[in-house]
Amino acid sequence: MTGFTPSDLLGQYQQVRNFTEKLCIPLETEDFVVQSMPDVSPTKWHLAHTTWFFETFILKPSSTNYRPFNEQFEYLFNSYYNGIGEQFPRPHRGLLTRPTVKQVFEYRDYVDNAMVQWMNQPTGPANADTLLLGLNHEQQHQELMLTDIKHVFSINPTYPVYKESRFNESGSLTPISWHDFQGGAFEIGFTEQSFHYDNEGPVHQQIVPSFQLANRLVSNQDYLEFIEDDGYKRPELWLSEGWSWLTKHQLSHPFYWRMQDGTFLEFTLQGLKNLDLSAPVSHLSLFEADAFARWANARLPTEFEWEVASKQVGIEGNFANNEIFNPIAHADPSNKLQQMFGDVWEWTSSSYSPYPGFKPADGAIGEYNGKFMCNQYVLRGGSCATSLDHIRHTYRNFFPADARWQFSGLRLARDL
Amino acid sequence: MTGFTPSDLLGQYQQVRNFTEKLCIPLETEDFVVQSMPDVSPTKWHLAHTTWFFETFILKPSSTNYRPFNEQFEYLFNSYYNGIGEQFPRPHRGLLTRPTVKQVFEYRDYVDNAMVQWMNQPTGPANADTLLLGLNHEQQHQELMLTDIKHVFSINPTYPVYKESRFNESGSLTPISWHDFQGGAFEIGFTEQSFHYDNEGPVHQQIVPSFQLANRLVSNQDYLEFIEDDGYKRPELWLSEGWSWLTKHQLSHPFYWRMQDGTFLEFTLQGLKNLDLSAPVSHLSLFEADAFARWANARLPTEFEWEVASKQVGIEGNFANNEIFNPIAHADPSNKLQQMFGDVWEWTSSSYSPYPGFKPADGAIGEYNGKFMCNQYVLRGGSCATSLDHIRHTYRNFFPADARWQFSGLRLARDL
Amino acid sequence: MTGFTPSDLLGQYQQVRNFTEKLCIPLETEDFVVQSMPDVSPTKWHLAHTTWFFETFILKPSSTNYRPFNEQFEYLFNSYYNGIGEQFPRPHRGLLTRPTVKQVFEYRDYVDNAMVQWMNQPTGPANADTLLLGLNHEQQHQELMLTDIKHVFSINPTYPVYKESRFNESGSLTPISWHDFQGGAFEIGFTEQSFHYDNEGPVHQQIVPSFQLANRLVSNQDYLEFIEDDGYKRPELWLSEGWSWLTKHQLSHPFYWRMQDGTFLEFTLQGLKNLDLSAPVSHLSLFEADAFARWANARLPTEFEWEVASKQVGIEGNFANNEIFNPIAHADPSNKLQQMFGDVWEWTSSSYSPYPGFKPADGAIGEYNGKFMCNQYVLRGGSCATSLDHIRHTYRNFFPADARWQFSGLRLARDL
Amino acid sequence: MTGFTPSDLLGQYQQVRNFTEKLCIPLETEDFVVQSMPDVSPTKWHLAHTTWFFETFILKPSSTNYRPFNEQFEYLFNSYYNGIGEQFPRPHRGLLTRPTVKQVFEYRDYVDNAMVQWMNQPTGPANADTLLLGLNHEQQHQELMLTDIKHVFSINPTYPVYKESRFNESGSLTPISWHDFQGGAFEIGFTEQSFHYDNEGPVHQQIVPSFQLANRLVSNQDYLEFIEDDGYKRPELWLSEGWSWLTKHQLSHPFYWRMQDGTFLEFTLQGLKNLDLSAPVSHLSLFEADAFARWANARLPTEFEWEVASKQVGIEGNFANNEIFNPIAHADPSNKLQQMFGDVWEWTSSSYSPYPGFKPADGAIGEYNGKFMCNQYVLRGGSCATSLDHIRHTYRNFFPADARWQFSGLRLARDL
Repeated sequence: MTGFTPSDLLGQYQQVRNFTEKLCIPLETEDFVVQSMPDVSPTKWHLAHTTWFFETFILKPSSTNYRPFNEQFEYLFNSYYNGIGEQFPRPHRGLLTRPTVKQVFEYRDYVDNAMVQWMNQPTGPANADTLLLGLNHEQQHQELMLTDIKHVFSINPTYPVYKESRFNESGSLTPISWHDFQGGAFEIGFTEQSFHYDNEGPVHQQIVPSFQLANRLVSNQDYLEFIEDDGYKRPELWLSEGWSWLTKHQLSHPFYWRMQDGTFLEFTLQGLKNLDLSAPVSHLSLFEADAFARWANARLPTEFEWEVASKQVGIEGNFANNEIFNPIAHADPSNKLQQMFGDVWEWTSSSYSPYPGFKPADGAIGEYNGKFMCNQYVLRGGSCATSLDHIRHTYRNFFPADARWQFSGLRLARDL
Repeated sequence: MTGFTPSDLLGQYQQVRNFTEKLCIPLETEDFVVQSMPDVSPTKWHLAHTTWFFETFILKPSSTNYRPFNEQFEYLFNSYYNGIGEQFPRPHRGLLTRPTVKQVFEYRDYVDNAMVQWMNQPTGPANADTLLLGLNHEQQHQELMLTDIKHVFSINPTYPVYKESRFNESGSLTPISWHDFQGGAFEIGFTEQSFHYDNEGPVHQQIVPSFQLANRLVSNQDYLEFIEDDGYKRPELWLSEGWSWLTKHQLSHPFYWRMQDGTFLEFTLQGLKNLDLSAPVSHLSLFEADAFARWANARLPTEFEWEVASKQVGIEGNFANNEIFNPIAHADPSNKLQQMFGDVWEWTSSSYSPYPGFKPADGAIGEYNGKFMCNQYVLRGGSCATSLDHIRHTYRNFFPADARWQFSGLRLARDL
Repeated sequence: MTGFTPSDLLGQYQQVRNFTEKLCIPLETEDFVVQSMPDVSPTKWHLAHTTWFFETFILKPSSTNYRPFNEQFEYLFNSYYNGIGEQFPRPHRGLLTRPTVKQVFEYRDYVDNAMVQWMNQPTGPANADTLLLGLNHEQQHQELMLTDIKHVFSINPTYPVYKESRFNESGSLTPISWHDFQGGAFEIGFTEQSFHYDNEGPVHQQIVPSFQLANRLVSNQDYLEFIEDDGYKRPELWLSEGWSWLTKHQLSHPFYWRMQDGTFLEFTLQGLKNLDLSAPVSHLSLFEADAFARWANARLPTEFEWEVASKQVGIEGNFANNEIFNPIAHADPSNKLQQMFGDVWEWTSSSYSPYPGFKPADGAIGEYNGKFMCNQYVLRGGSCATSLDHIRHTYRNFFPADARWQFSGLRLARDL
Repeated sequence: MTGFTPSDLLGQYQQVRNFTEKLCIPLETEDFVVQSMPDVSPTKWHLAHTTWFFETFILKPSSTNYRPFNEQFEYLFNSYYNGIGEQFPRPHRGLLTRPTVKQVFEYRDYVDNAMVQWMNQPTGPANADTLLLGLNHEQQHQELMLTDIKHVFSINPTYPVYKESRFNESGSLTPISWHDFQGGAFEIGFTEQSFHYDNEGPVHQQIVPSFQLANRLVSNQDYLEFIEDDGYKRPELWLSEGWSWLTKHQLSHPFYWRMQDGTFLEFTLQGLKNLDLSAPVSHLSLFEADAFARWANARLPTEFEWEVASKQVGIEGNFANNEIFNPIAHADPSNKLQQMFGDVWEWTSSSYSPYPGFKPADGAIGEYNGKFMCNQYVLRGGSCATSLDHIRHTYRNFFPADARWQFSGLRLARDL
């Protein structure tokens, strides 16, 4: 599992682009338009922005003959690439009724046609690297489309269902146990030849003292005990900024839990459901994950600990990705560390920083990762909404400490 | 022109309901969803809320057999009737993707069918007054639908066109001249039998000193002179609160004017156009109207002055309503006061207050007008988007002093 | 009781200026500095601003020889006179530690000396009108000094005492009874020769239908019954904007009431005290006054009703002003309307608007009243902190509908 | 230079407490009261809070006979120790006029007397560690008193002077040159026995690749060139969050620079002065420091790089601390790295995180450091306002990325 390779670019291109559109099948036209909070983008915007990426970084530079589908889209669908030009203000993306959904799909077709031509040119595509980046970029937006539409639906009192599921609740859960990892100097970062993001390198040595990691993720059941033990009312369990955040927003449970008649339900892409106690707790902020860990006399792992431990675990077969886009409990007894990949993103205590020697790419594309290396924290492992191609030991996802709308949970760590 | 009468309720009902839907013809599905600022409601919401009014105040009380289309709509589409129950938060109306537009039209059909049955019952409709109120209510929302979609389109950099128009720019303009009105004690309020709002009564005597009124509305040309004379930069021309408002929002021109290459354009329902200099200036706040008047050594009329003068002018023939929904210059030489009706709402200096002896109706329907009698100012005359049925001498429209998204302009007055 | 006259300008000047400083005796240096909310000004600022008024409008224009105490004070202590120049931002007045309190008193001495010289010049003072305005202006600020320091103290958990009082709680209360006033056309406004504000004129005729007025103010006891009848929880009692305001700020009682162990206490300038049930309820917003009136099946009087009724009541002897700066119950059996003057300001339902023919004075001094005639409501009668010189039938005080830090209460009215 | 030792506790106690009061000599009573922004605390509060620390953590636990000076101070002067109880809201500290400055000094005397008794008890002080922590805590507040009063004065248009200085502008500046440091595994953290904060340990190994460090701090002259090269207008130079911050606050220069007649002046504790071009640039946010470094084709050092390099430089003699509380240029030719200590705090790129194995102390005192380890960045070296006792190789200061009111600047680093 190593990301895209240039061997079959056309097939990979079509597979990724089609999957994006497949994710739209359950949606009504109205669902594409709304931005339910500033972090969320409308589905329509995701569809257009991922297309804009190919148009901007491949089609426009590759040929002076290329005629853009619509000159205004450069402004409307630029996300944050200041090197490209001004951007339509992010918090207002949901105010645009035009272009319509139909026009956005036409935009996709138009660009897809031009891209196929570009890939089929006799000399072969000049900058396959940018193409691969574009595909990985679109896969990141596939996950965002799911988390964003989940948020849009969640604020609707009618609780729409994105997709029904035949899965029932998860089975029983093994108790938390601990695995030891001996410390040492370890190689950190991506060492293979296939696609990876610039932030996964350069490869470098890192000293990691001995530590312990829990065999499984923290479950809803575990988290419920934290709540019932007044976890949201005890300031000594929280980071200072977390306590201010909790107090300001008057929080008492995870993002999508809903108290009804004294019982917690959970809003999911399958609608409002009973809380699945065995499933990993999800949609936590770093603040909540950190407070839970302190309550449990443990801590969050560093991203280096996670990577060191993860490299001792195989990915194949140890993987829950299920296209119901909800994390469920699943035992993978062949591994001492269960649920490492494809359940929920696991918060680490590591600030998102450049590895030693990190250099962003030149030009606008260099804005991809480096400029976000401030006030964000690293998550590892991938979620039930993450593309399979993004599941790897070295992948560094990152979000601010108060972000809750992603599939984010935690695994406990301890000093050995 | 006296509003609705009970004589042909069914025909009136169908005419009003159909006209609402006719206004939607130019819209794409996406256009129905968005709320571009808290004052604006999505078109979808207007369609449902006007329907909710009939369901709530007629169908539900009239028969225990009536089964609501959807129980949740009572909460979703209640505007502000606390007597009915909780309301979905107004600023979040644009976050609801469901019910879909199609479902809202089905809701309208469902309620229309039940209403026809109710009107056709052998004993005749019990509370025709509420029906008439519902129709007038829907006509008010017809105007709001136009002003709201205008705002939604205005924030889109592609400047969508609601409706093309064959009208060219207005012709030349007569200079402002003044007409004298002798003071005295006048009867104020609605004196006929036909429909009117509770706030137009009780009829009462009001002493109005002698005054002068301008023969026509203030034009874009007039207003441009105010701007060029530094009207937005001279605090002595502004109310204190107006100056704070202007400074905070850094304003320098009317709401829909756009400076492009040193020239003002105006956004209209026909798209972005050259400024029509002869047309009445529109989309002013009370603050701007008041400052202009002070600059012109005049003042705004009181609502009593406006009503006294207006009753000396015939409405028929003196009326611009044109279904292009943009105010244009038009001479009505048969009247000494031109453009009194159906061009732009005319700000008055009168705070929106109850007339002596005013009593709201009992029950939730009494919340219609009285509870808004605070920090709002009266506008008179009707605009190019106002239903013909609402054009009358005594109609009191009202908005806060900083409201700009309505078709609001001014006519000058002076002491005699 | 007719305001100041030019006959003894020097004596009047000294009396007013001295009284301002007498009000400062109970204060510590620290108390002069703080601005506890944007509406409040630091005592230091009041002392300097009232002095600035004489310097700016009398000393500077009267002689080119006058040398200002400090050139920067023109900017620092201008309140809102745009005609004079820029103003230091109002919400930041409490951030200025310099000039010190001592320097501000020196500023007062410096200006007082120049003023005495100016009054003693052989030709006599040229513009006594401005002097009288300056004295009345300072008296208005005397009331603000008291209400502002009350607010500053109120947010301190140690509840400082401004002034102890030997007065005990008020005695028993007469029940509310109603007095009839026959309608007619009445003369409104100030008709005498002595000092009054421009907004009390021009004198004009106003038709006032017959009405009833309550014999006394609404008391704390009355208001407690409103609270206990869920007055703050029933939206049907409130203006729409009032209900939003109450909900946003989560209010459940008057401004200075404090619930302690299930009982209401009230913060006063004598510190935190038991609620005096017979005393008039005070520190209400217009919203609260209006809601109480609706609950009591009554309404607020218009300012015209109040003035008409008031003119039938003598002021002498009917007057509670007591220099303890807290309203107390007091019976004045010689009058059918009790507590009309000097207890609490009485909210009226009248928007603060210009009387017909109103013209502000020329120049910066014309900014005194007219520019505030928007979104404010008239209060009548004067409070326990109001200067005796300001107690008259025609005096128009005004505040926004949500203002609570003034001594503001209400008297009920009804249609006859 | 190793922090406090238990050998002469009484002498140290008195020295620290006296120095705090010495810093107040230039202040007027009014200056003690104001809080000019939420980050700033009034001087009065600092005086009381540092005293509260000894009362709370030493006197109250040490004897049941101790009677607090004032029971309410526990609430009023607790900063953020949730383990102790509720805190008066931080942003409102400047609203308290009482206790007065005089009372706060009496509070200090009262506690000092009790502390002397405690230190003189026959058995000796039981918890000298807490005493040392209290003294170091007070020294941290000494620096905050200076940076806070600087901010209070800076918003006053009269630009008060805290302290005149006989120092003239700095001399000429050596050009920036680079020194190489070979990479390896280094010991990080405090290794001696004397006082240090918990966050300076545990000592641990860290791999640091080879790097270069600039011989001196970035100067005002250097920074001016960045501004003149449009440094504040080029998004590609900034972290994404930094660019949003800059745009929102419309920034174009360091915190205390003031443009006057086309030239930059700088507000200092000596008042408003010409910009000292040779002096180190100060009062930068991390965002500005990072953007400058990118513009200079360099980067910020990590805190580990800074510590490794610093340990090769002697502190004695290499030290500018001068009690004028303004950083000035000074050459220390005996060291290859100049200005490492006591000029300005040097931003590093390191997020403030716990060292491996970090454990906060038990009880409320454990809230000292650990709970702030989120969204803050480490600064090293100490400033012109830092106590000499705090100048050491391992000291970790920390502030959010947008903090500017501290004496914070930067030194450039590069990969080798």
